[in-house]
Amino acid sequence: MAKKLYVINPNSNTAVTAGIDAALDVLRQEGGPVIECVTLAEGPPGVQTQADVDRAAVLVRAFAEAHRPDAAGFVTACFSDPGLHSLREIPGMVSMGISEGAALTAMTLGQRFGVIAILEASIPRHLRAWAAMGVSSRLAGEVSIGRTVAELADSDATLAGMAAAGKVLRDTHRADVLVMGCAGMARFRESLQDAVGLPVVEPSQATVAMALGRLRLGW
Amino acid sequence: MAKKLYVINPNSNTAVTAGIDAALDVLRQEGGPVIECVTLAEGPPGVQTQADVDRAAVLVRAFAEAHRPDAAGFVTACFSDPGLHSLREIPGMVSMGISEGAALTAMTLGQRFGVIAILEASIPRHLRAWAAMGVSSRLAGEVSIGRTVAELADSDATLAGMAAAGKVLRDTHRADVLVMGCAGMARFRESLQDAVGLPVVEPSQATVAMALGRLRLGW
Amino acid sequence: MAKKLYVINPNSNTAVTAGIDAALDVLRQEGGPVIECVTLAEGPPGVQTQADVDRAAVLVRAFAEAHRPDAAGFVTACFSDPGLHSLREIPGMVSMGISEGAALTAMTLGQRFGVIAILEASIPRHLRAWAAMGVSSRLAGEVSIGRTVAELADSDATLAGMAAAGKVLRDTHRADVLVMGCAGMARFRESLQDAVGLPVVEPSQATVAMALGRLRLGW
Amino acid sequence: MAKKLYVINPNSNTAVTAGIDAALDVLRQEGGPVIECVTLAEGPPGVQTQADVDRAAVLVRAFAEAHRPDAAGFVTACFSDPGLHSLREIPGMVSMGISEGAALTAMTLGQRFGVIAILEASIPRHLRAWAAMGVSSRLAGEVSIGRTVAELADSDATLAGMAAAGKVLRDTHRADVLVMGCAGMARFRESLQDAVGLPVVEPSQATVAMALGRLRLGW
Amino acid sequence: MAKKLYVINPNSNTAVTAGIDAALDVLRQEGGPVIECVTLAEGPPGVQTQADVDRAAVLVRAFAEAHRPDAAGFVTACFSDPGLHSLREIPGMVSMGISEGAALTAMTLGQRFGVIAILEASIPRHLRAWAAMGVSSRLAGEVSIGRTVAELADSDATLAGMAAAGKVLRDTHRADVLVMGCAGMARFRESLQDAVGLPVVEPSQATVAMALGRLRLGW
Amino acid sequence: MAKKLYVINPNSNTAVTAGIDAALDVLRQEGGPVIECVTLAEGPPGVQTQADVDRAAVLVRAFAEAHRPDAAGFVTACFSDPGLHSLREIPGMVSMGISEGAALTAMTLGQRFGVIAILEASIPRHLRAWAAMGVSSRLAGEVSIGRTVAELADSDATLAGMAAAGKVLRDTHRADVLVMGCAGMARFRESLQDAVGLPVVEPSQATVAMALGRLRLGW
Repeated sequence: MAKKLYVINPNSNTAVTAGIDAALDVLRQEGGPVIECVTLAEGPPGVQTQADVDRAAVLVRAFAEAHRPDAAGFVTACFSDPGLHSLREIPGMVSMGISEGAALTAMTLGQRFGVIAILEASIPRHLRAWAAMGVSSRLAGEVSIGRTVAELADSDATLAGMAAAGKVLRDTHRADVLVMGCAGMARFRESLQDAVGLPVVEPSQATVAMALGRLRLGW
Repeated sequence: MAKKLYVINPNSNTAVTAGIDAALDVLRQEGGPVIECVTLAEGPPGVQTQADVDRAAVLVRAFAEAHRPDAAGFVTACFSDPGLHSLREIPGMVSMGISEGAALTAMTLGQRFGVIAILEASIPRHLRAWAAMGVSSRLAGEVSIGRTVAELADSDATLAGMAAAGKVLRDTHRADVLVMGCAGMARFRESLQDAVGLPVVEPSQATVAMALGRLRLGW
Repeated sequence: MAKKLYVINPNSNTAVTAGIDAALDVLRQEGGPVIECVTLAEGPPGVQTQADVDRAAVLVRAFAEAHRPDAAGFVTACFSDPGLHSLREIPGMVSMGISEGAALTAMTLGQRFGVIAILEASIPRHLRAWAAMGVSSRLAGEVSIGRTVAELADSDATLAGMAAAGKVLRDTHRADVLVMGCAGMARFRESLQDAVGLPVVEPSQATVAMALGRLRLGW
Repeated sequence: MAKKLYVINPNSNTAVTAGIDAALDVLRQEGGPVIECVTLAEGPPGVQTQADVDRAAVLVRAFAEAHRPDAAGFVTACFSDPGLHSLREIPGMVSMGISEGAALTAMTLGQRFGVIAILEASIPRHLRAWAAMGVSSRLAGEVSIGRTVAELADSDATLAGMAAAGKVLRDTHRADVLVMGCAGMARFRESLQDAVGLPVVEPSQATVAMALGRLRLGW
Repeated sequence: MAKKLYVINPNSNTAVTAGIDAALDVLRQEGGPVIECVTLAEGPPGVQTQADVDRAAVLVRAFAEAHRPDAAGFVTACFSDPGLHSLREIPGMVSMGISEGAALTAMTLGQRFGVIAILEASIPRHLRAWAAMGVSSRLAGEVSIGRTVAELADSDATLAGMAAAGKVLRDTHRADVLVMGCAGMARFRESLQDAVGLPVVEPSQATVAMALGRLRLGW
Repeated sequence: MAKKLYVINPNSNTAVTAGIDAALDVLRQEGGPVIECVTLAEGPPGVQTQADVDRAAVLVRAFAEAHRPDAAGFVTACFSDPGLHSLREIPGMVSMGISEGAALTAMTLGQRFGVIAILEASIPRHLRAWAAMGVSSRLAGEVSIGRTVAELADSDATLAGMAAAGKVLRDTHRADVLVMGCAGMARFRESLQDAVGLPVVEPSQATVAMALGRLRLGW
């Protein structure tokens, strides 16, 4: 039986998982690993605070431990990469986090990436993450849309906010590629791209693509 | 009743807590806040992996929530600063982590600080932390002694390892101040200082001192 | 007789010294070291140019040499830290500079600190200092209020200027903590905090608090 | 007809192209784009100097222009990424360079990557490239084996040199992942991995994997 | 016969060469090396894309090879420094690039240099170059005037655009020295200086001055 | 009467001034500014501590003020650049410091410059200076020879120490260009170059060359 690449949405919002799942369809291939998107029912409704991130990290790792037998790898599909470095302690697995994968991919699409965050409070956390990754000099800036994960359900308002943020990133921060800073934004990639005229990185897609490559290459 | 500054040892090793507690005596003052060192019995025997750090983060936050009524602040007394940014989401508290406090203090004692880590595997985690803090350019380097937290109980071997590491940091990495990279090393500060001839920062001491200052200054 | 921590205002403006002195009251403790604020009568009316800084450095060191017998340490209380690294060449003393202490403290209060400078010409000097300290990546930005040290005496205009600068740092530079970039601003901490809604670091307070900690810890 | 991903070896050494081609087999998939490895007959025998790089850049771009009709993308398969940013000026193509792809992938496999260069003179060029990419803080170091591209044909001596260099990178530079710094080293990945005990990134593989992902994702 | 310092304009625009030539007059001295400005007739009308840069690099190197016998050195007089590191592989020559020389000189004239670029698309290329040089922390920012090299011929519109860009760099990016980011802007130095009130670095001048110094000093 | 470029040796060691003066001969030209090397008799015997630097800064500025009428510019010829930023506050002068000029010039001669310091205690001061200049990423490292300025008088021992240090910088730190970190080393440039086989930057020469260029260019 083919092993699975588990894409773990660590919040309990199944609409977010569905959005990720749909976005990943384009990466599913005959003979490729099964890409299975899962929701952590015990997760918070949205990973919005550091406390959420820390709890999510533990849940993500617990999920991974429980699913090692049929797993080829794990993607922690929240933009704060909860549990990423813990997942990497499990030998024999490909483990990736979606903010990392998004940034690394964006670095091949433009010189300066701009990030659309959900909440203002997410930004300092992201800034620490970019610095820890060593990619801060490629960041153009971050702009938040002031919406919780739950509030992303309102598509019109969310897209309007994202387009406005994207234009600020493009015109004021001089970004030439955008990164959507939340897994819950997955379904807006195309419309955002149209609205702003820059390539838009959907982080789960970018990261799963890298994970699939690593699986084929054997590390 | 005076509020307390809780110094939380997130591992279950009471000898470590006792070592921290003794090291902090010099900071206790008439009229100052009560400095109370606690052990998290449900913590791991040592915080040695990222999984340990993530679980500790949740436990530290839970402890803090439970003790808000009589708390003035919290110090997460493990060199991976588990739960630090989560603690900072609790309003009205002074929250500090000991690697942060140690680094910031070391930056006033020398130009390049060298860190003595317990395990080789701790070093990449620390490197990410220094980068996230934005202080990497002040790091001379890290050298591990290859001992778990439990193994620190063997004082002679531990001190010998620390002195050797300290000399490498001094002579090869050109550190001019040392930071002990584990709360469980607290009792070795003086002997290490004597052995290597550089100022040695005990991270719990350095951090509690900063926390006491912040308490007096009202943020 | 208890040794003294000398807080040296290197300009000749006694109102500035009085402001520092009042700000430090909260740090004075029974049994703690005497905190003595002094004015260098031969100093410039304000340390506003590099020439001022260089002369102040020599005066600060001379003062320290003259007061070694009863000194436990020295704080050079001007935001250009005149004489700091020279003071550090005097063995057995705790020597600190207020811009260094302010930055290191601000790094525990927020992710990106914003600095309110007195004069536009101070900013390049500060930028060199942050870079030399290795903390530039944590700086949100600097905004000047265009007032000399003497002109800080006009409290209403000064506070208005500081509040305006603080709001620009908060809203445009995305600072989440402010640092007052002159010892002569000490008395405005509370009003500025109220006006801008961010924690405000008064540099002499922050630095003396760290110095007191270092004195207790024996380096 | 399926479009092609052209992997361009800009030197004229067909053994190098064959090595790349074999290394990429694992990435070829039913229904995936055709991965076609080509040799630039007019290229230098090895891209070893900056003059080689500059000439290769022009040749790579010329090849790409000539093959636009049936191309989905281009990978410039020399570790100096000749022509990469020129390729990126051709709209509607996925263009990647193998040092970039190698570094970005290595950043998901370890904290500090070490690079095995062919010649000492390649290293300053690589250092400029890592800095331009903004990833220098993740570089552990580079060690050269002192062999030209042609000399890589001697497998035993080359592998011995690579293993020795890899061990220096692991033990002295503290790398936890290795990058082979020349497309002509492709066939040594497994043996090097065995010899050094660290994951080894073969740059053409890593980069083509990322390119395939980008092709699926539509940018 | 005195050897020559060749200043190579790699585009075919002779007006640009004439502008450089006039700007360099002030550096010509009795007994100094002959400063000869040349136009590469086969160059592009303007070096505006990366493809232009790469082709120019080859042409510049070829010119240098052809003129080694009577050359003391070479300056590649285009702001993308085409061929600079290739020129440096020719032993016994002083080789310089004008963006490098301009930046290094600007670093002695102010704390933060602002660059006036011709086209928006030039800026990412420059950002990579500053990073590769290791001087990014001294860059205030870049602003483009949206004109091709050919369009610089319209002096009034060009100067107006440059003055506007310079003021944005001064007031928004806080530059205290300006660098003209194209050799074709040489004739505007004085007027721009007057319009903006900051020192303006003309890159060919700055670089030839450094080259003359290196020639005298024998490396 | 031609204005003078004053090269100020801020220590009282006339042998050092004579060494600088001889080194600058090659830069003296018919019609060029008079290059006048002066000794500050009231300076310390060597600028070896930060206290020395601070006092020298004041003396250098005082000298400059006294000689403004016939001065075209000033070079502070001590590797700690005492008074540099103060000199720059005097309008209408070209003011340069020799560590700055040396570093900027070395950046055109190699990728990573290595510095030979006189004393171990000079190195932290230099590290702060490179960081303040923003050029740290180009520094390979510093090695001291453990000799005071006075002890440089013993030519054989000094050169032996410098050659040994230069080889460590070349072989261990991977420097490809050396900078002599003291004005008192001027006479060793050629022998050191021969001994180590790398280009050697004599800082007074490099800096005066840049100053002469700036004088001709009018800023």
